[in-house]
Amino acid sequence: MAPLTRIGLAGLAVMDQNLALNTAEKGFHISVYNRTTLKVDKTVERAKQEGDLPLYGFHDPESFVKSIQKPRVIIMLVKAGAPVDQTIKTLSIYMEKGDCIIDGGNEWYENTEKREKAMAELGGSFKAYKHIEDILLKVAAQVPDSGPCVTYIGKGGSGNFVKMVHNGIEYGDMQLIAEAYDVLKSVGKLTNEELCQVFSEWNKGELLSFLSEITADIFGIKDDKGEGYLVDKVLDKTVMKGTGKWTVLQAAELSVAAPTIASSLDGRFLSGPKEERVEASKVFKSSGIRDILADQVVDKEKLIHDVRQALYASKICSYAQGMNLIRAKSAEKGWDLKLGELTRIWKGGCIIRAVFLDRIKKAYDRNPNLPNLLVDPEFAKEIVERQSAWRRVVSTAINSGISTPGMTSSLAYFDTYRRSKLPANLVQAQRDYFGAHTYERVDMDGSFHTEWFKIAKQSKI
Amino acid sequence: MAPLTRIGLAGLAVMDQNLALNTAEKGFHISVYNRTTLKVDKTVERAKQEGDLPLYGFHDPESFVKSIQKPRVIIMLVKAGAPVDQTIKTLSIYMEKGDCIIDGGNEWYENTEKREKAMAELGGSFKAYKHIEDILLKVAAQVPDSGPCVTYIGKGGSGNFVKMVHNGIEYGDMQLIAEAYDVLKSVGKLTNEELCQVFSEWNKGELLSFLSEITADIFGIKDDKGEGYLVDKVLDKTVMKGTGKWTVLQAAELSVAAPTIASSLDGRFLSGPKEERVEASKVFKSSGIRDILADQVVDKEKLIHDVRQALYASKICSYAQGMNLIRAKSAEKGWDLKLGELTRIWKGGCIIRAVFLDRIKKAYDRNPNLPNLLVDPEFAKEIVERQSAWRRVVSTAINSGISTPGMTSSLAYFDTYRRSKLPANLVQAQRDYFGAHTYERVDMDGSFHTEWFKIAKQSKI
Repeated sequence: MAPLTRIGLAGLAVMDQNLALNTAEKGFHISVYNRTTLKVDKTVERAKQEGDLPLYGFHDPESFVKSIQKPRVIIMLVKAGAPVDQTIKTLSIYMEKGDCIIDGGNEWYENTEKREKAMAELGGSFKAYKHIEDILLKVAAQVPDSGPCVTYIGKGGSGNFVKMVHNGIEYGDMQLIAEAYDVLKSVGKLTNEELCQVFSEWNKGELLSFLSEITADIFGIKDDKGEGYLVDKVLDKTVMKGTGKWTVLQAAELSVAAPTIASSLDGRFLSGPKEERVEASKVFKSSGIRDILADQVVDKEKLIHDVRQALYASKICSYAQGMNLIRAKSAEKGWDLKLGELTRIWKGGCIIRAVFLDRIKKAYDRNPNLPNLLVDPEFAKEIVERQSAWRRVVSTAINSGISTPGMTSSLAYFDTYRRSKLPANLVQAQRDYFGAHTYERVDMDGSFHTEWFKIAKQSKI
Repeated sequence: MAPLTRIGLAGLAVMDQNLALNTAEKGFHISVYNRTTLKVDKTVERAKQEGDLPLYGFHDPESFVKSIQKPRVIIMLVKAGAPVDQTIKTLSIYMEKGDCIIDGGNEWYENTEKREKAMAELGGSFKAYKHIEDILLKVAAQVPDSGPCVTYIGKGGSGNFVKMVHNGIEYGDMQLIAEAYDVLKSVGKLTNEELCQVFSEWNKGELLSFLSEITADIFGIKDDKGEGYLVDKVLDKTVMKGTGKWTVLQAAELSVAAPTIASSLDGRFLSGPKEERVEASKVFKSSGIRDILADQVVDKEKLIHDVRQALYASKICSYAQGMNLIRAKSAEKGWDLKLGELTRIWKGGCIIRAVFLDRIKKAYDRNPNLPNLLVDPEFAKEIVERQSAWRRVVSTAINSGISTPGMTSSLAYFDTYRRSKLPANLVQAQRDYFGAHTYERVDMDGSFHTEWFKIAKQSKI
């Protein structure tokens, strides 16, 4: 019989298998379990192939749980919602007071809060974290000068919430990169080879990130089923899971503007009904509006330079929105989240990992109460340097009929936030006109109501 | 003792008092009740002043309910949520089987569904509608050639849902008008007198609407507390109630893109922290970025013409989003709502009333299954005629540093919807790269997965 293992992992999709192997590779003996036993066997086999790693597979929940040393820690990686409840139910039969389950999936944070409450008297989440901190510190991605990408985020569902916003930001990044691609391809007429070079080049500077890197890779891959490049054969119809939508819902609930992230969600909604778009395209083509309005003569090098600036400036706005979302929720729930620390752990191992995150961390180190990333002196300077190019890119796109909702909504966010006076005075006047909702004045305190209709009627007589 | 009245009204805020007086004026004897009795007396007094109208005030719920003829109908106009529950509880003590309560407020539709379910065995909503249809037909706004602005919308909470979307569209309209104002004022340097003239002029054509009319009125009103015009003294800080937010939440839930409506909500979120904006403005001013970037030399007449086109084209996009939202919900809930009929009843009496709604009604009359207003032949033609001006306006705004999120997101909506090919292929390739989420191809059926990383790595060796 094998010695008891240090930790268990329930749920073995591809990414989860990697986590299990990674843990074993770091020397921690690990038990794995999955409802579909085929995946257990597959993982065990991979562990053997990769050098006889200390990974042990189980086909039934009882022997799985009992193979782990007490107090037991099981990381659960299953689909959000009912499957999580089911897994907890199945495993907890064999677990004891002091044991713990960590939900490592993309779960809706309120579900986690409910479950944590139900389990509260049996354990504590910080204590559980401490119990496996040694494993997490080793298994996590390691970033030079900033340590392992793991931290105790906070109580309740705060971890899930932060991961949700991470995913929302990821949606925004992908939308912005897709828009950069569209402008470069449709206006600049860049080939896939050129796009590959451009993104490889960008990936050496301020845009260095996992997503820039894989984008460069993608443009370099030929189609193995026909002529040309694979990216051109992929259908332009995006699918999604729930986290981007959750982020947008939370932004509205919290009264935080997150238009860049929202535009990425809308982009996915609108890309879905491909057939409807093809029909719409025909309607407008018959009226003389082509997909791309006109062939503009552009300076390719200048366009590439401008798009790079536009992409980076838009990214700053998108991250500013995401961080404000986390801060608003933290205040609402009393989670006391540390924004700088969150960006530190995103520097490695996750989809949005990027050098850029280090700049954000430093901004919050400089001023933990920064009201918005945009007004951090460093970011403000970067935006000021880029704003002309940014405006050129979106104007060019607009005049070419190319939609860049992520870049334009980022720019609108910037131009709204930095304006001391907005046309909202008219909106307030309208609201007071038709609904007697009252208004404030710029020159004196108090709440005012005017009989706009009566005065207007009198003056018309 | 007075004879029994035909109908009761509970809740007497300003707009509700008007409804009560309107009903009495049409000859229907009406009982009114409010928790704060002062408002009851005020309404009774107004009824006397306006010609001894058959309106009867009550200070306690029992005598109020008992003053109405059976089966009793009470229209309730109180704040959404708990006050509605409280009012139902208070009144229903004295009500009998067959009596009915109509919630005329801006209630969250799910609350209504819950309440209706609880009451289901005591009545039916269509029967209740029929019972007071004669009153509603007379009290409703009357529009020549299209009749009274009232209809039986559908079962359950469908009425509340439709009213909620109406309010979301109203938010969009107000945002777009505010942007038109901003561009005309900040770029075109129009004075309030000129703005008053412009909106009055616009209100004679395709933009004829209640909101255009009151906007013109507002620009004409002088400040009674100092020099100049009142609109310039109103603080640019908007407040809101819940319906705009609900609309945006529902759009995300239903996977319907509603970026114009969402931009109006963000506009309100961002206008709120005025002090923060003033600080941000200072940060960027010190880097040389003024609120308005540069004084552009513009042809005033041409700008006015262009903004009019941009406003109208953006409006079409905003209404297209709202109608699609209603259609999606109707399909989900099996409400079978008639989109044309809904726009008909919006033609009079409500905040978004406009001649424009007649065009929408006709579009749905032509094709009840229209997938999107944008592809109705008439609207498509109108957009094609306006698109150049629309692009000019948003480009001008962007280059002046003026945010027009409603207009740009409307344009992005149009340019996304009419594109047969979007850059979403890159997003799908990325998703397959990092998450093995698979993709479809343009040239063959099926679901595909590529080992992007492996191939890219090999080619780099």
